[in-house]
Amino acid sequence: MEALFGALPRRFARLPMFPFFDLAHYAASVMSLKEQRGAVEISCHSPIACWFSAMLYCFGGSILSSLMLGEPPVAFLANTTNILLASSVWYLIFYCPHNLFYRYVSCLPIRLLVSGMKEVTRTWKITGGVTHAHSHYKNAWIVMIAVGWARGAGGGLISNFEQLVRGVWRPETNELLKMSYPVKISLVGAVLFTMQHTLYLPVEVHNLMFFYTVFLVVTKITMTLTECRTSPFAVLENALGAFLFGFQPACLKAKGKAKVSYNGSTSVVSECTSGGETGDSVKKRHAKKTE
Amino acid sequence: MEALFGALPRRFARLPMFPFFDLAHYAASVMSLKEQRGAVEISCHSPIACWFSAMLYCFGGSILSSLMLGEPPVAFLANTTNILLASSVWYLIFYCPHNLFYRYVSCLPIRLLVSGMKEVTRTWKITGGVTHAHSHYKNAWIVMIAVGWARGAGGGLISNFEQLVRGVWRPETNELLKMSYPVKISLVGAVLFTMQHTLYLPVEVHNLMFFYTVFLVVTKITMTLTECRTSPFAVLENALGAFLFGFQPACLKAKGKAKVSYNGSTSVVSECTSGGETGDSVKKRHAKKTE
Amino acid sequence: MEALFGALPRRFARLPMFPFFDLAHYAASVMSLKEQRGAVEISCHSPIACWFSAMLYCFGGSILSSLMLGEPPVAFLANTTNILLASSVWYLIFYCPHNLFYRYVSCLPIRLLVSGMKEVTRTWKITGGVTHAHSHYKNAWIVMIAVGWARGAGGGLISNFEQLVRGVWRPETNELLKMSYPVKISLVGAVLFTMQHTLYLPVEVHNLMFFYTVFLVVTKITMTLTECRTSPFAVLENALGAFLFGFQPACLKAKGKAKVSYNGSTSVVSECTSGGETGDSVKKRHAKKTE
Repeated sequence: MEALFGALPRRFARLPMFPFFDLAHYAASVMSLKEQRGAVEISCHSPIACWFSAMLYCFGGSILSSLMLGEPPVAFLANTTNILLASSVWYLIFYCPHNLFYRYVSCLPIRLLVSGMKEVTRTWKITGGVTHAHSHYKNAWIVMIAVGWARGAGGGLISNFEQLVRGVWRPETNELLKMSYPVKISLVGAVLFTMQHTLYLPVEVHNLMFFYTVFLVVTKITMTLTECRTSPFAVLENALGAFLFGFQPACLKAKGKAKVSYNGSTSVVSECTSGGETGDSVKKRHAKKTE
Repeated sequence: MEALFGALPRRFARLPMFPFFDLAHYAASVMSLKEQRGAVEISCHSPIACWFSAMLYCFGGSILSSLMLGEPPVAFLANTTNILLASSVWYLIFYCPHNLFYRYVSCLPIRLLVSGMKEVTRTWKITGGVTHAHSHYKNAWIVMIAVGWARGAGGGLISNFEQLVRGVWRPETNELLKMSYPVKISLVGAVLFTMQHTLYLPVEVHNLMFFYTVFLVVTKITMTLTECRTSPFAVLENALGAFLFGFQPACLKAKGKAKVSYNGSTSVVSECTSGGETGDSVKKRHAKKTE
Repeated sequence: MEALFGALPRRFARLPMFPFFDLAHYAASVMSLKEQRGAVEISCHSPIACWFSAMLYCFGGSILSSLMLGEPPVAFLANTTNILLASSVWYLIFYCPHNLFYRYVSCLPIRLLVSGMKEVTRTWKITGGVTHAHSHYKNAWIVMIAVGWARGAGGGLISNFEQLVRGVWRPETNELLKMSYPVKISLVGAVLFTMQHTLYLPVEVHNLMFFYTVFLVVTKITMTLTECRTSPFAVLENALGAFLFGFQPACLKAKGKAKVSYNGSTSVVSECTSGGETGDSVKKRHAKKTE
């Protein structure tokens, strides 16, 4: 029993991403593109902009990390098989008659499976990014964190420019100003794997990969089931934020006003409930029905 | 006679672009910059922004393809002769007393000659881009198409950022969302030359260059004379679009509404007529007169 | 006496920038970030966006010149010591209890010292950029000027994208459309050092560095004391602009209207007075008091 449990992370770390996990990643990414406001109209009027947008969703992390390391950002196009796979998924999700494929993938059990598998690819991307950055810069742990984060969070960090492809421009918001949960957890992952890589974290890499992935998948599935969008770290974040950045007069004032809404666990519960009843997800479901 | 005709494409393919064709390209590019709304005011208030904008028009394809392949985007500045040539053209077109040079170049016969010669450089740029990408990535035909397209369509694809230099920001439109004819024909050219390069198209390169250029020049001159801005492929595009992307429910609905305007050859004629009477070109001519 | 004066520029050119001058550069950069409208609110709500913005202010020139030469733009993150130094300065200026550190640095004598020292680093950056570009492209003097300028003017040239990180988007203005004095003087410096490097300017490099730096520091201190924001070159610029770009009909018309405001030395005096009484600096002081 103990031997089995010891061998599990080791075998897990050898799991090949191609083709099934990659496919799930493409499907989940293209679905989240289709659920953006206005994406369906774009897909009718200009399939090329829609395709390019989908590629930015699927390969955003790879493009961003290439740009950061001064490598050709078109390198991802050289992997013809993956591009064709992602393009097929994009075609099926956007243009399948009667929306059959999209309806099939968005029914709850399939959706859970696909989002779970997509989270597995995130771990692989972060470790890939950290290792790749290490091969360029020895011991530059900030570069390793940055590249690992960019590779893991991917499309999120370049969302402003992805939206620009679709003719949408929302400068007042970006993932650095208001981080979404996947971007946050990718940053945590990048820090952990960098610490492991520079030997500050006395854990074996396959154990870290296994437990980080399990955490990712479990939180993702929980969040999909409860339609809760609040980070599980909200309490920790608020405490840390207050401790590190809370002594500035202007912030103390702002905090005084917003005391109720930043009230730790209470706000988590309330956001989850409202997320389930009045949030984005409901609007999306309505949008789907009216399509 | 047959020998002459056989030798023509071969001799054509050895035509040097420097200096006359390059000059025509710079003149046509800077003229289309000057015809942008607000460009003349910018040229008075901040000549450096205007110069930089003109360089993006003239060398946009080179800059974009360098960025895509992870090469220094300032490489084009190292070719001092070409920069000085382009800068002289820019200076003459924008700042010549009494607009003499601009008036001279924009009279119809000269304009036709210049636009025809500019189209010739497009072929050279696309083949250059495809070959250059092939030297980086063997058999990555998607990269070859992308780089050839970027080099050929040039300024068009980065127009959002070129406008930003002049303080103009129109996020709701870009060349991927609503392709102009030069960008479309560059894409077709990039696909053809890539197929030729990877031996899927059993044509010799000089023949393809010759016939593609002839097609480019003839359509460009026809479009300038008739002031028609509709792509000659409109019918084909609509048919292909309907076949590939037309089965989505939302698109079918949108199409039902817009049936009249998408009515193939009818719409082509109507757009040409209106283009000649009420379109941009008329506004531009008015603008020129009031200058 | 003469020997001492001859030795001074030589010894000056060997001055190490690390750590004191670098520290002054970081302090001056982060302070100018804090004085931007809305920056303090951002620092409360999303410290990561604020930190990234501060890094763009401190290392903007390095990032921009890396991008221009096709090198990894994250290279600056590999210099861990400098990043930690800049981050500490950022933390102290933004989050020190009761704004103690910011108040201390912004009192006039310290502010003068810090801005003077920051100007010294500008010389080092420009010469570094010119030399670095020369190692890539032999005798490509336009590239040398461009990279020297980018390194020296730094954050200014990418201000649009730095603002985007903080959720601000002002497309109608950028440093090419309306150059600020530091950007202008960096351009002049880049031209001078390039001419020196390509031996068109018969001056020894340490002499040029010394006299250019003295000029930078003296003008900066004068401008801070008099709160005058007009370039000392205004008269020269206007004359040169009128000579080179003034013959275009549209510009002549615009100039006729604006004759009074472009009236050389008169306008300089008036702008300085108004700068001291009603300009940005006053608003900033008000903002500080209300914080």
